[in-house]
Amino acid sequence: MNALSDELILTLNAGSSSIKFAVYAARTGETEPVLRAKGQVEGIGVRPHFIAKGVEGQLLSESWWEPVADGAGSGHARAFEQIWSWLSNVADGAQIIAVGHRVAHGGEAYATPVRITPEIIQVLAGLIPLVPLHQPNNLAAIRAVAVEHPNLPQVACFDTSFHCGRPKVTEQFGLPRALLDRGVKRYGFHGLSYEYIVEKLRDLAPEVADGRVVVAHLGSGCSMTAIREGRSVETTMGFSALDGVPMGTRPGLLDPGVLLFLMREDGLGVETLEKLLYKQSGLLGLSGVSNDLRELHQSDEPGAAEAIDYFVYRVGQTLGSLCAAIGGLDALVFTAGVGENDARIRARVCADAAWLGIEIDPDANAARERCISPAEHRPSVWVIPTDEERMIARHTLRIVSNA
Amino acid sequence: MNALSDELILTLNAGSSSIKFAVYAARTGETEPVLRAKGQVEGIGVRPHFIAKGVEGQLLSESWWEPVADGAGSGHARAFEQIWSWLSNVADGAQIIAVGHRVAHGGEAYATPVRITPEIIQVLAGLIPLVPLHQPNNLAAIRAVAVEHPNLPQVACFDTSFHCGRPKVTEQFGLPRALLDRGVKRYGFHGLSYEYIVEKLRDLAPEVADGRVVVAHLGSGCSMTAIREGRSVETTMGFSALDGVPMGTRPGLLDPGVLLFLMREDGLGVETLEKLLYKQSGLLGLSGVSNDLRELHQSDEPGAAEAIDYFVYRVGQTLGSLCAAIGGLDALVFTAGVGENDARIRARVCADAAWLGIEIDPDANAARERCISPAEHRPSVWVIPTDEERMIARHTLRIVSNA
Repeated sequence: MNALSDELILTLNAGSSSIKFAVYAARTGETEPVLRAKGQVEGIGVRPHFIAKGVEGQLLSESWWEPVADGAGSGHARAFEQIWSWLSNVADGAQIIAVGHRVAHGGEAYATPVRITPEIIQVLAGLIPLVPLHQPNNLAAIRAVAVEHPNLPQVACFDTSFHCGRPKVTEQFGLPRALLDRGVKRYGFHGLSYEYIVEKLRDLAPEVADGRVVVAHLGSGCSMTAIREGRSVETTMGFSALDGVPMGTRPGLLDPGVLLFLMREDGLGVETLEKLLYKQSGLLGLSGVSNDLRELHQSDEPGAAEAIDYFVYRVGQTLGSLCAAIGGLDALVFTAGVGENDARIRARVCADAAWLGIEIDPDANAARERCISPAEHRPSVWVIPTDEERMIARHTLRIVSNA
Repeated sequence: MNALSDELILTLNAGSSSIKFAVYAARTGETEPVLRAKGQVEGIGVRPHFIAKGVEGQLLSESWWEPVADGAGSGHARAFEQIWSWLSNVADGAQIIAVGHRVAHGGEAYATPVRITPEIIQVLAGLIPLVPLHQPNNLAAIRAVAVEHPNLPQVACFDTSFHCGRPKVTEQFGLPRALLDRGVKRYGFHGLSYEYIVEKLRDLAPEVADGRVVVAHLGSGCSMTAIREGRSVETTMGFSALDGVPMGTRPGLLDPGVLLFLMREDGLGVETLEKLLYKQSGLLGLSGVSNDLRELHQSDEPGAAEAIDYFVYRVGQTLGSLCAAIGGLDALVFTAGVGENDARIRARVCADAAWLGIEIDPDANAARERCISPAEHRPSVWVIPTDEERMIARHTLRIVSNA
């Protein structure tokens, strides 16, 4: 990394076995943070591996260490130490002014990012039952920072916030009201990604950004969101991260009767079902080959083609149901790993969506141009790389600037 | 009932606490059975109540008796005895030539109705795990007839048959292949109703019947099916009777993570979850008032309006996703109790579907005309009363005629 003469913002996105991070310079008088470095610690709890890269993708630093084995969250604490010590070494006197976190769930309390306090950590811990596999990782990262740097401002940016304020019908399930009142409702996730796409689309095509847009965030996790006038109206994921579009290892849409069947016939309990649905389903389960569409495209196994067919079909059905929520379609946006990089999937989804008036230019699609539909054609189709880290950095800068 | 000079077919549709029946005359040389009487035994196991009505709705017979308490299925046997003894008395010498049954599940073995044999009863009993709340009632009725009249032909007409042969992607879930291979897939139900609607639509508007049609079977159970060229392409219900459109007491579409949450947080087991999802959810659960839309329309409770809003919204979303499966829409058909009788629901669903080009004539809708869209308008919108009993009688007559 070049010597840094600005104030710095560190963003952290903590998963169960990884922490992704990015470093942004917050220049005086400018509101847009400037990316300086990116990286991650992978293999937390197994064989931690730190890597940091510069803005051109050049390797800045890499290291490995033995996993710590003294309690939950301690692997995250060690990973954060590594990130911090690397950053302190290269910061060259620049001050780290805040850490921004991606946090899975803000519940109904947080419709916008917040500066973290001990009270807020309590509230966020109370939401763990809603996202037991994600929220604890985020809290582990927050606590790791707080212990080492108690006076450093931390900001929580929630994956749910963008979806707050949707029409009530889109939040409900057909369940007893007592359950809805207890918070069993469709919150929506991937909100930082959608928020970034909306801001980007406003730059690229303001007239489209104010219309009816469906964004397909297709990565290892997938969701799709119907957006009208820049606001989330309907989204496929959900109460949990299982619902909606099929994913690498998660099923998407599933008849609840399947769980009753597996409980009754096979005597499965919650741990086994959770493992089945979070780790063994989706593209991996259907194909029997891989959770990765790149590998499925290469595979000759019949299950691989079937899994791709199923994925494309469900994305298409979901697109239809989302159009119903916003009364039609002005633009379709593909984003995240698969959405940004898999031209074949985009081509198939768009071919199936011809009934909605969708049409793409095959060359533009293959070249991954920003707009891949013919000029002036409506609905237009877009490929926009998402950038959740940048969204976190923007929110964090805004909050510490206003403090 | 008028004296019957023809051969008779009895149809039975057995639920957990009721058996609906109908009597058709099968006139020599005519292929269409002629309805002579309809009725039901309600309150099996509680306070059985038999009622038979003529074709004009006039009361023919009514009686009550004390429930029998000697084992599963015995209530159905006693109910069948009552139906049979009434029918024998009024048959006036006409011969009962066959009994046709509605059977919930034919699995993958039976894509068409079949004449029942002891071997087939075994196969159907083997499907009980797939529909534990429905199949046993159908089998109880079949066995009750077989015990009393071992030589009387019985025909099983399956709710799943119409949906057989759909594209593989529409049958699958995003689950491991081993589960799909074990039969965990989307079979589809209400098939006798859809088959009847397709035949009726072929009479009413053959050019529409060969196109892309969505049929909304909205009753106390609800499902919707996308039909192209008269064949089922996609349907919302499902592996179980829980999935798809919200129903009187069932949720429809539900994030599987909700079940994991209830298992983990509340320690709920399969019986409690089954009761919650089959009996306490849907319109009843959401409204806190009633499972019956007629009562919800009358209610001032805020939950009643919310439940209606939710129902209408989900029907609209489902319509969008079904259009994706058949690449657009030539006609929408409403059927079953709510679909046939609730003009307000139809009007709201159609207003929300304006983005699909749907338009209705408010007077035609209020008057429940067959076609409620403006003349020559496409997509057209229809209200067609379903008649599952007639479909059973047709199949039964066809099978015993070919024997």
